[in-house]
Amino acid sequence: MKLLIANALIIPMTKEGLYLRGDIGIDGKHIVFVGTGDPSFRADRIIDGSSFLVMPSLVNAHTHLSMGLMRNYKDSLPTLQAWLAEIFPIEDKLTAEDVLLASRLGIIELIQGGCTLFTDMYFEPQATAQAVIEGGIRGNIGVTLFGALEENKARVEERETLLAPYLAEAEGRLTLNVAPHAIYTCTQETYQYAASWAREHGRVLHTHLSETKKEVDDCIKETGMTPPSYLAKTGVLQDVKSMLAHCVHLSEEDIKLLETFDTTIVHNPSSNLKLSSGIAPIASYLKAGIPVALGTDGASSNNNLNMFEEMHIASLLGRVVETDAEKLTPYQVLEMATKRGAEAMGVGDKVGTLEAGKEADLLLIDLKKSHLTPLNDPFSALVYAAQSSDIDTVFCQGKILMEQRKVRTLDENKVMDDVQKSWANILKR
Amino acid sequence: MKLLIANALIIPMTKEGLYLRGDIGIDGKHIVFVGTGDPSFRADRIIDGSSFLVMPSLVNAHTHLSMGLMRNYKDSLPTLQAWLAEIFPIEDKLTAEDVLLASRLGIIELIQGGCTLFTDMYFEPQATAQAVIEGGIRGNIGVTLFGALEENKARVEERETLLAPYLAEAEGRLTLNVAPHAIYTCTQETYQYAASWAREHGRVLHTHLSETKKEVDDCIKETGMTPPSYLAKTGVLQDVKSMLAHCVHLSEEDIKLLETFDTTIVHNPSSNLKLSSGIAPIASYLKAGIPVALGTDGASSNNNLNMFEEMHIASLLGRVVETDAEKLTPYQVLEMATKRGAEAMGVGDKVGTLEAGKEADLLLIDLKKSHLTPLNDPFSALVYAAQSSDIDTVFCQGKILMEQRKVRTLDENKVMDDVQKSWANILKR
Repeated sequence: MKLLIANALIIPMTKEGLYLRGDIGIDGKHIVFVGTGDPSFRADRIIDGSSFLVMPSLVNAHTHLSMGLMRNYKDSLPTLQAWLAEIFPIEDKLTAEDVLLASRLGIIELIQGGCTLFTDMYFEPQATAQAVIEGGIRGNIGVTLFGALEENKARVEERETLLAPYLAEAEGRLTLNVAPHAIYTCTQETYQYAASWAREHGRVLHTHLSETKKEVDDCIKETGMTPPSYLAKTGVLQDVKSMLAHCVHLSEEDIKLLETFDTTIVHNPSSNLKLSSGIAPIASYLKAGIPVALGTDGASSNNNLNMFEEMHIASLLGRVVETDAEKLTPYQVLEMATKRGAEAMGVGDKVGTLEAGKEADLLLIDLKKSHLTPLNDPFSALVYAAQSSDIDTVFCQGKILMEQRKVRTLDENKVMDDVQKSWANILKR
Repeated sequence: MKLLIANALIIPMTKEGLYLRGDIGIDGKHIVFVGTGDPSFRADRIIDGSSFLVMPSLVNAHTHLSMGLMRNYKDSLPTLQAWLAEIFPIEDKLTAEDVLLASRLGIIELIQGGCTLFTDMYFEPQATAQAVIEGGIRGNIGVTLFGALEENKARVEERETLLAPYLAEAEGRLTLNVAPHAIYTCTQETYQYAASWAREHGRVLHTHLSETKKEVDDCIKETGMTPPSYLAKTGVLQDVKSMLAHCVHLSEEDIKLLETFDTTIVHNPSSNLKLSSGIAPIASYLKAGIPVALGTDGASSNNNLNMFEEMHIASLLGRVVETDAEKLTPYQVLEMATKRGAEAMGVGDKVGTLEAGKEADLLLIDLKKSHLTPLNDPFSALVYAAQSSDIDTVFCQGKILMEQRKVRTLDENKVMDDVQKSWANILKR
């Protein structure tokens, strides 16, 4: 199948400030040209792009997909700790079937919000992997670890086996990460085992880090080190690709230290505000040369998976910093929400920008909207004015997952009904 | 015309935490019952409310509607002052026709975002008043003042004459405010004149106050007083109903002082972040007993008029404050976005809550959405998870202004085209 998107406003995300009007050619899974059309290209279908802005699909670099079940549930508590005390007992009751249904719903929400790649950390990852395949998107699925070494060795072995058939089936759209939950729930040995497994299999290590002041204070009290120092000193960050979610509270020394590793900080501004964790000074991390990606965290601490809202909030927060030179720009935030996430997961060669040779993960955004008129600067428009409901069409690996706002790969009404029933049932258990 | 909304989830906003499933009856302009139906009520039309949440329409308590023209225009500047230096020369070129077209667009955007009442401050207010009547919404239109006394006396006289026919035509949906722009653009005499005019005609005084640290520092340097003290000492706040937009930088003394007047602070969190003005500590104002309403400010410093986004951002920011006791709750934010705005404008007896006898300004929000499943707490759902595109139907004064997301009173495509042309023309002048 050859497809031409004709005469669109294109933001390829390959160069700061670059936008152009032109064509995009898609042949099967791949983009074959961006901008100037190839006269020999014979398209099976032509989409009139004249009222669309085309950009790479969004990348959600930190979430717990199935926590959508606990959306808007007991969520006015004062701290992360108080909220986790409500959430953990619910999670103890979840089955693989609950996770499958909730993952389907989460994937529908991701597609509707223009996201076709996400990093997940949760239980029953094989159920989430199944939903990824059904939904047609990409997943970087966590093998999530809690507690001490022995139980985690067994867990990794079991999950590798459970996940193997899905990895084989996903046509390259599925990768794994190893996800020790946090330094306050995993032992040092668990982290070291996770890191060695990641090194051995070429996978990413994904963890929560320095999310709250309490976590940092407790770590210093127990180990004499900040969380990043603790992971560095115990060899966990050495020679491994890592994604560190949150990093709200880093010292100057932490920043200097993290810059020396192959690590990406994942900013989750909504969750950090909602759980009263604070505001991460992202511009200073970028200035220090640390890559930053963007995530929504779970829908229960957000309370949705809307990457357009996340870009909006990151952009606004990025303007109330001390010095003028460190304000986040709209382009930086768009990078965080696209290519930086893909690079962090090790798939930056496949997706994250619009370039010939890359796989076709892209969005058609309808510009005929009152709140996008006049458009003026398209980068400002995307981060400050646009809404996820402006996305008309979502492509992943050359396939249309949503068109005219209708998700094609999953049955939205059925999935919503299933999740309602599953949640009612969980509350009764 | 009698209309019944049957079996809906209703949030009347009359009591903290109250929601119920039931019916709403509308007879002409008015709500005749909420909750339990009246068996003798014979509806001409019945709307099945079973998948809808019904709440009062939103109230945008501070905007400059026609600044939508400058949306996403030169908006990455470091401060309010730098940005105003770009905006003022554009505004000097605007005609009443430009303001009319931009106001129509702004009203479409307000309706799509569930807002049916707004407080405006801009030039050519008669053009905005005309658009309010065409759009079928409510406006509290500013007679905006800049500079010294004499020019403003002439301005008020001229604008009263221009606005009179619209006031007569609007069936009660139009009120006026007097809007001295700011203490750094208006003389003391202008403020005193505005206050006496407001007292004489029973109108609200609407102004920007303590928006930036620079404004506060300059005021102290020039007058020895903070901006609220300056307005209080010069008699401006005495015996007048006032709306003070922004109030990002108030001292404890300012808070105590404002509590003694009939004033409402209007919180504009997006604009305050975007212009790097800061984060207003709203929970502490509420705790001191000062009413707080919510506004978007103009779309050029936001960059849209989306009150759902504004509630979302206010809610999130309201959770990163010093003490647990001062966190904003979802219900407080919903109050700020509905009844508090109506009360501030002096129309709280007509709109702002769902009660028998009030005029029917209300929203039907479609709950069959992936990001609202499961719903759990409906107040959390509204401020944290919902999006303005979830609004299906908007009523104002008993009339349907939008249904199934289609605005009925204005032609969206024509208005967008008109504004594009007008803006291209302005840039060439």
